[in-house]
Amino acid sequence: MLYEINEKALKLESEGKKMIRLNIGDPDLSTSNEIVEAAYEAMKKGKTKYSSSYGETKLREKLAEIHHVSPDQVVITPGSKWGVFATMYLALRDGGNVIVPTPYWTAYELTAKSLGAKTKLLRTEFDSQWQIDLEKLEDLIDGETRMIILNNPNNPTSKVMAPEILDGIVQIANDKGIPILSDEVYGTISFVKTKSILDYEGNHILSNGFSKTFTMTGWRLGYIIASKELVDKITRLNQITIGNVPVFIQEAGLKALELQKQISTKIREEYRERAKIASNIMSKTALEFTEPEAPFYVFPRKRGLDSERFVLDLLDKGVAVAPGTSFGDYREHFRISLTAPREMIKTGLNRICEALE
Amino acid sequence: MLYEINEKALKLESEGKKMIRLNIGDPDLSTSNEIVEAAYEAMKKGKTKYSSSYGETKLREKLAEIHHVSPDQVVITPGSKWGVFATMYLALRDGGNVIVPTPYWTAYELTAKSLGAKTKLLRTEFDSQWQIDLEKLEDLIDGETRMIILNNPNNPTSKVMAPEILDGIVQIANDKGIPILSDEVYGTISFVKTKSILDYEGNHILSNGFSKTFTMTGWRLGYIIASKELVDKITRLNQITIGNVPVFIQEAGLKALELQKQISTKIREEYRERAKIASNIMSKTALEFTEPEAPFYVFPRKRGLDSERFVLDLLDKGVAVAPGTSFGDYREHFRISLTAPREMIKTGLNRICEALE
Repeated sequence: MLYEINEKALKLESEGKKMIRLNIGDPDLSTSNEIVEAAYEAMKKGKTKYSSSYGETKLREKLAEIHHVSPDQVVITPGSKWGVFATMYLALRDGGNVIVPTPYWTAYELTAKSLGAKTKLLRTEFDSQWQIDLEKLEDLIDGETRMIILNNPNNPTSKVMAPEILDGIVQIANDKGIPILSDEVYGTISFVKTKSILDYEGNHILSNGFSKTFTMTGWRLGYIIASKELVDKITRLNQITIGNVPVFIQEAGLKALELQKQISTKIREEYRERAKIASNIMSKTALEFTEPEAPFYVFPRKRGLDSERFVLDLLDKGVAVAPGTSFGDYREHFRISLTAPREMIKTGLNRICEALE
Repeated sequence: MLYEINEKALKLESEGKKMIRLNIGDPDLSTSNEIVEAAYEAMKKGKTKYSSSYGETKLREKLAEIHHVSPDQVVITPGSKWGVFATMYLALRDGGNVIVPTPYWTAYELTAKSLGAKTKLLRTEFDSQWQIDLEKLEDLIDGETRMIILNNPNNPTSKVMAPEILDGIVQIANDKGIPILSDEVYGTISFVKTKSILDYEGNHILSNGFSKTFTMTGWRLGYIIASKELVDKITRLNQITIGNVPVFIQEAGLKALELQKQISTKIREEYRERAKIASNIMSKTALEFTEPEAPFYVFPRKRGLDSERFVLDLLDKGVAVAPGTSFGDYREHFRISLTAPREMIKTGLNRICEALE
């Protein structure tokens, strides 16, 4: 329902309705001028041609340096979403199953379904602070399990995995020889220390992107770090699908990495402030929630809520949020994206609280 | 081998070797300044956000107007390659077969193979001017046939389908209820009148793109025109894969369409001239070829040639072309892309002729 809500919100807006869109993880902030200028310079230099399906060498080298891997372990993708799809496609196109903790990012299950693969959901609970139960994970693994997908920090809970839990998950995966696809798009701008899958031994896969760290959502720029073998396979898939990410967009990404420290610090602090504002308002209501440990979301619960109905009604009140059912079996929850200016978040949250009364 | 040759040519070039790259359909011409400026203006206006997986309304409307269809029959894709993949994925991910005339664009068979579907090749011959034999086509169709793929004008032969042959193919497809995916990326800049699949009744699919018509290869902008039902399905696939084509790139595409007449006329005339130059040089040699009826290729034959070996040897002489085997069982052929300035084409062709002696 996540994507339908978004298309509906866009439609209402195009019809002239003022919407406060807190339904997707698309920040209100602008992409930095320096990044825009870098893209423009590259275009003017004629970097508008076909290029390597691996991605540009300079960008791969820079990312390899940041993540302490070899450049041939890096492949550039049009958004981290494509990296996730490509990895899942290669592992699951002929069946098998994938283990996905819930609440989850909607695309994982939709992708598995599209590929004809089975998703085994590993439920986590608000009441246990959204932490994964290692025994439950071990029980879910069978001979057909091709992959475990982690999203750390998590969308929609903005919760970071406890290091000892992540240690335990990797241990289990390594014992069973199952690769972990770790989607860490919120990792760089996390409010708390966040371990990466690359901190571990094992044949695991990192998915990351520029969207969240640099407010470059609509640029569609991401990357996969994995074994050279998998990077080669993804590249061959790129060759018959997306070709290459526009070189001028990769040049913009290179500029973003140069400015990483200043940009990501600013973004992190802004979202920390927004999370505080949201927490303050919500804590005066009947909503239950865990404190966000990363941008961009809060995932509150109200006992007895039918969130799908609630979200549709709320659209008419000019506020878009996402129902909990878009992230698994969480009908009493809904997701608020803090991707609007502070005053708008306040207005949006106040309308939400009114609608809940 | 097509993509390996390209990666090799790029590598040689990055090592400092001067290469005449006649191996891929990536024009030497630049994207028009007006198009670059339109992208830049859109970026500066903040059109760098997530957007609809259908594509921008204005661009869909403009394309609908050009092709005399409804806007809800248009979906924007990151390159026509993605449109082809998405269409094939939806039809063939659970098996079946697809009929593809040869010589073909490499990606069709690689995609079918990647999806686990069978490709039934429909051979056409130099000696019959590359025209499809309708009886052979009818014999190939069976209960598992999900799609026929046409590429008109054809890559690598630059031959346009005779109208009565296309009439016959559509008749057969309609009788059997099989959709045709017609890849017409060279159609707008064809040297001769070229019928489109949209000129016919039936549940067929047009794939097209901005790469060739506007020299926008590296921008990755294409579109599919099909039934609303298929457009909706492709959009749902877009939602879990590529998200959306960057809006600033779609704005650039809109500007390109405004300038279509002047840009495409100029491009067509330039390629007509290049085709003449190539034909003149080749007609003085033992090479056999059909006159190009569209940009960008010639696909000559030399009896007894092992084109794979020839192409690899030619790389060392600083010229990249593509072996005939990349387009089906055409070992005696190779493909020359006329995507370089006239003088360079002359030099490249002279080196090719020398190497063949």
